Amino acid sequence: MVTNGLLSEGPPIALFDSGLGGLTVARALRQVLPGEPLVYLGDTARLPYGTKSPATVHRFTRQCLRFLMGLSPKMLVVACNTASALALEALHAEFPVPVIGVLKPGAAAAVQAVRRRLGGGVGQNLAPRIGLIATEATISSNAYPQAVRQLDPTLHVVGRACPLLVPMIEEGRANDDPVVKLVLAEYLQPFVDLKVGALILGCTHYPILRGAVAAQLGPEVELIDSAQQTALVVRERLGTMRALDPRPAGGSLTCYVTDQGQRFERLAGQFLGQSVGQPIGVTPEMLEAVED
Amino acid sequence: MVTNGLLSEGPPIALFDSGLGGLTVARALRQVLPGEPLVYLGDTARLPYGTKSPATVHRFTRQCLRFLMGLSPKMLVVACNTASALALEALHAEFPVPVIGVLKPGAAAAVQAVRRRLGGGVGQNLAPRIGLIATEATISSNAYPQAVRQLDPTLHVVGRACPLLVPMIEEGRANDDPVVKLVLAEYLQPFVDLKVGALILGCTHYPILRGAVAAQLGPEVELIDSAQQTALVVRERLGTMRALDPRPAGGSLTCYVTDQGQRFERLAGQFLGQSVGQPIGVTPEMLEAVED
Repeated sequence: MVTNGLLSEGPPIALFDSGLGGLTVARALRQVLPGEPLVYLGDTARLPYGTKSPATVHRFTRQCLRFLMGLSPKMLVVACNTASALALEALHAEFPVPVIGVLKPGAAAAVQAVRRRLGGGVGQNLAPRIGLIATEATISSNAYPQAVRQLDPTLHVVGRACPLLVPMIEEGRANDDPVVKLVLAEYLQPFVDLKVGALILGCTHYPILRGAVAAQLGPEVELIDSAQQTALVVRERLGTMRALDPRPAGGSLTCYVTDQGQRFERLAGQFLGQSVGQPIGVTPEMLEAVED
Repeated sequence: MVTNGLLSEGPPIALFDSGLGGLTVARALRQVLPGEPLVYLGDTARLPYGTKSPATVHRFTRQCLRFLMGLSPKMLVVACNTASALALEALHAEFPVPVIGVLKPGAAAAVQAVRRRLGGGVGQNLAPRIGLIATEATISSNAYPQAVRQLDPTLHVVGRACPLLVPMIEEGRANDDPVVKLVLAEYLQPFVDLKVGALILGCTHYPILRGAVAAQLGPEVELIDSAQQTALVVRERLGTMRALDPRPAGGSLTCYVTDQGQRFERLAGQFLGQSVGQPIGVTPEMLEAVED
């Protein structure tokens, strides 16, 4: 089994995503927990998960989490909306450490945002609706509407799959790119028409295009970045566990990928806000071998 | 091992692609060889291959071809440009039946097209250049320029990766969609500036957008659809082998996918020009188990 070489730092928080997008969660964690050692696995050989079936996403996610357990983490963070939506509920019981997804923190923040806007002075012409942009698989799963309904049955979630956003971001297109503007205008028009009070950026890639989304929707619609919300939940949970790392800065980040380490390294800066070193390669076959 | 149930028809031609795109090759084969039984495997659990490394594409391709060998085909067709570019050369020797890719037929047709245009009355202001649009991995592999150079060292290939085209096509966007037009105008402008004589549609998805590409480039640029060229090579090769199916029509098509059978069935018509039945599911783990 792989050893993490981080024992002198204490056990790490282990993050998992199908690819690069989860690095926006690593970035948010770094901001609120600067001393924590982090390990990150991107399943780049089998990405994207967003067009795949629940059974396949569940199997791949389980394999990745079992691999990460070999690094002796104190917590598992599923930094992928698709995996959080399709696989998380069934996997909680299987691991001896807490498994935190990005979906529930995002849903909770959206509910709070819409309530705040409905109750306050602004947004009086905003309907009690929450918009959601995400992958095909996340939309089909209905997991966000279910999570919101559990918190507030009066709120309605309107979702739209946005398959072009991830490849546009990985192509390096900026917020003012004409293609980005045209595609977002098309994808977001229904949310403008429906006067949603908040829009969930339901894929860990999407915060990269936050500026362009905000420009389309205007200041009355609050954008919910589940990376930030998830980081706050992680901090709170580690506090309850009395497992916070006391150091004020300098936590390490070690990345593992199942393919394309150089591409990962090249694109990572955009998501993380700083450069990462060359990630460590593992194959999907190695992940599958971890299964019992 | 899986049996094909097609023995009464004689051995099939087995096609492989990472997903749906190879169905454009199945369609072209059906046009020139209407009586041949076809089997098709789409590795939809691990698609797309176009952003993955040569080592990973090679391993996945090998697993898929070994699975297809279990269906006792008379020929293997790698109906995927990325796999043809990155994996085919190393795999030829491993299989007891001919393995035909889409790359060399496309490269040969492009060379012929440019020579024809340079020699004829049209295209006198066209440079001896061939354009290529393809996935990131196909472009990085340099396989098309190498194949063209082997045929004619005076011809130069100019390639561009077009990561948005596959997701735009799978989203169902038509040739007159404003996003399609804007993205193609951007991707294709260098080929207009360079006055290429032919453009290779170097991904089996791209023929779906043939009309929009032609509208951007004008009638002086010949579009090379490697699906059609590959079908002609397959027919010629089977003829040499005396293995052509004599029946004039009615060849079957059986599809296997590693994930998302319903999505495959829903989108397949666009690529094949006719509907397919529900494909048969196999998991990537089953493919890996075929390896020795």
